[in-house]
Amino acid sequence: MPRDEFQFIDRLRQRTPFRPPVRLGIGDDAAVLDHPAGTVEVVTTDLLMEGVDFLWPQTSAALIGRKSLAVNLSDLAAMAARPTAAFVSLALPRQRGRQFADELMDGLLALADEFEVTLAGGDTNSWDGPLVVSVTVLGTPSRNQPVLRSGAKPGDWIFVTGACGGSLAGRHLTFTPRLTEAARLTELVALHAMIDISDGLAADLHHILDESGVGAVLNAAAIPIHADVGPLTDGRSRLDHALGDGEDFELLFTVAVEDGPRLLSAWDLATPLSQIGTITSDRRCRMYCVDGSVVDLPPLGWSHPLGG
Amino acid sequence: MPRDEFQFIDRLRQRTPFRPPVRLGIGDDAAVLDHPAGTVEVVTTDLLMEGVDFLWPQTSAALIGRKSLAVNLSDLAAMAARPTAAFVSLALPRQRGRQFADELMDGLLALADEFEVTLAGGDTNSWDGPLVVSVTVLGTPSRNQPVLRSGAKPGDWIFVTGACGGSLAGRHLTFTPRLTEAARLTELVALHAMIDISDGLAADLHHILDESGVGAVLNAAAIPIHADVGPLTDGRSRLDHALGDGEDFELLFTVAVEDGPRLLSAWDLATPLSQIGTITSDRRCRMYCVDGSVVDLPPLGWSHPLGG
Repeated sequence: MPRDEFQFIDRLRQRTPFRPPVRLGIGDDAAVLDHPAGTVEVVTTDLLMEGVDFLWPQTSAALIGRKSLAVNLSDLAAMAARPTAAFVSLALPRQRGRQFADELMDGLLALADEFEVTLAGGDTNSWDGPLVVSVTVLGTPSRNQPVLRSGAKPGDWIFVTGACGGSLAGRHLTFTPRLTEAARLTELVALHAMIDISDGLAADLHHILDESGVGAVLNAAAIPIHADVGPLTDGRSRLDHALGDGEDFELLFTVAVEDGPRLLSAWDLATPLSQIGTITSDRRCRMYCVDGSVVDLPPLGWSHPLGG
Repeated sequence: MPRDEFQFIDRLRQRTPFRPPVRLGIGDDAAVLDHPAGTVEVVTTDLLMEGVDFLWPQTSAALIGRKSLAVNLSDLAAMAARPTAAFVSLALPRQRGRQFADELMDGLLALADEFEVTLAGGDTNSWDGPLVVSVTVLGTPSRNQPVLRSGAKPGDWIFVTGACGGSLAGRHLTFTPRLTEAARLTELVALHAMIDISDGLAADLHHILDESGVGAVLNAAAIPIHADVGPLTDGRSRLDHALGDGEDFELLFTVAVEDGPRLLSAWDLATPLSQIGTITSDRRCRMYCVDGSVVDLPPLGWSHPLGG
């Protein structure tokens, strides 16, 4: 996300008081609302644009529809929430016609069926502009308690699901939102903080650190690099790609140090879990490299001085 | 709304089962969700596009932002609901810069403050395309009971707030959503069915009739025509404009015949109420004209044969 957009959102956040039932608004993967009788609801929304989030016709209408819902489901996974209802608004390019719109919704609804989300409403429009798909999803947190970005504590172990990097090769369209993994995690352990990796592992770790007021040390050797990264061709190391590429839609989370080993031994899903570092009380974000050096790890555009 | 979009939505509606907590999805002004402990929530969403819903720079950024929220608040008024939280997603034309985005949100947030709605989240993006604003609003129905389109009963009196027609002269940007009026109505009377007028008085009346399985007779002389309609210049009568123009964002609703006169005598807000007709058990929609003739009133493109 460009710097200017961060500033715009910061201004909105400062300007916006949270009135009940809103407990938490701008600043996490989803908003948190407190309803009567103690019911908690989470709400997330994402808007996808042709030429930015997907290309057409390189990407099929069905995959565009699928991704539009999947990124929202990933946000709910990051809150440890179960999705309930989805709302889909479309700005459809007029000349592409009904079949394109049907295929887009078929792709979206196949994923909705998989996770038992109801398409509960939306707004369908045609125009002469490019395709825009805006999706809002409501959900219910596991154990009625959403996991926020702000709960990381010094000493926590930092985990990531799956592997990172190279998602633009296709995975950014076909990934499975980590809803099942999030639900299993909440059964096994108390999650302190969680986010889904959209901006990139390093950038999203910084979101957790900023919201929690803590720092971190990562272990470069432990960071899972996706096979999609492939051999080096662009002057960036494979680790650079894992740290910076983004759109992995893996879960990045922290748990108390005493829960860390227990989680690793109890974990019984096929998706790998990796402990990649530890939360610290000082506000710096650093990384131990395989050559024994320690480098600062900035949120974006990080490049290892030794190329690996 | 073009015929093809109606067919697209009908297909979605047929294809989409409502799973709990969704009680009512596609097919009303807002979806209705049943939460634990009997709490009811309504959710509505609208996507506005440059060149379709507004022009720029003819319309200021502030008015564009205002309208984007206002149309959603009007949908909640039509459910007799109080808005609580809003989510705003933007596709911002890159070259217009931060000031444009700030002014747009200032216009939106001024209306949010007026009705005590919290901006709880959203998604901010820049691109090279035209402006798109997608807004979703959550709300709570008065008396925990949303008013649907489907509750009209034979014999009901049909009412409309304010006056209709000519909104494109500017009112479609500056209208006040009828939230206060909807809340007062629910205090005074049992509302059977309600909708806000976006497609046009005749078209939106047909939505109520279709969902309720009833018909109607309107009294042409009783239909309030807005002063914005002005003198005839385009070959259509002033009544034509009131019936067909749309974007009036007035409330169209029905109450039991015994409640009708009581409502008129108890009504104490400045916004006028007009009884414009009666619900019938036969499925036709007709209108008594000032010349004593009776004509069928189709949902769209209606044109009185005598020009008045």
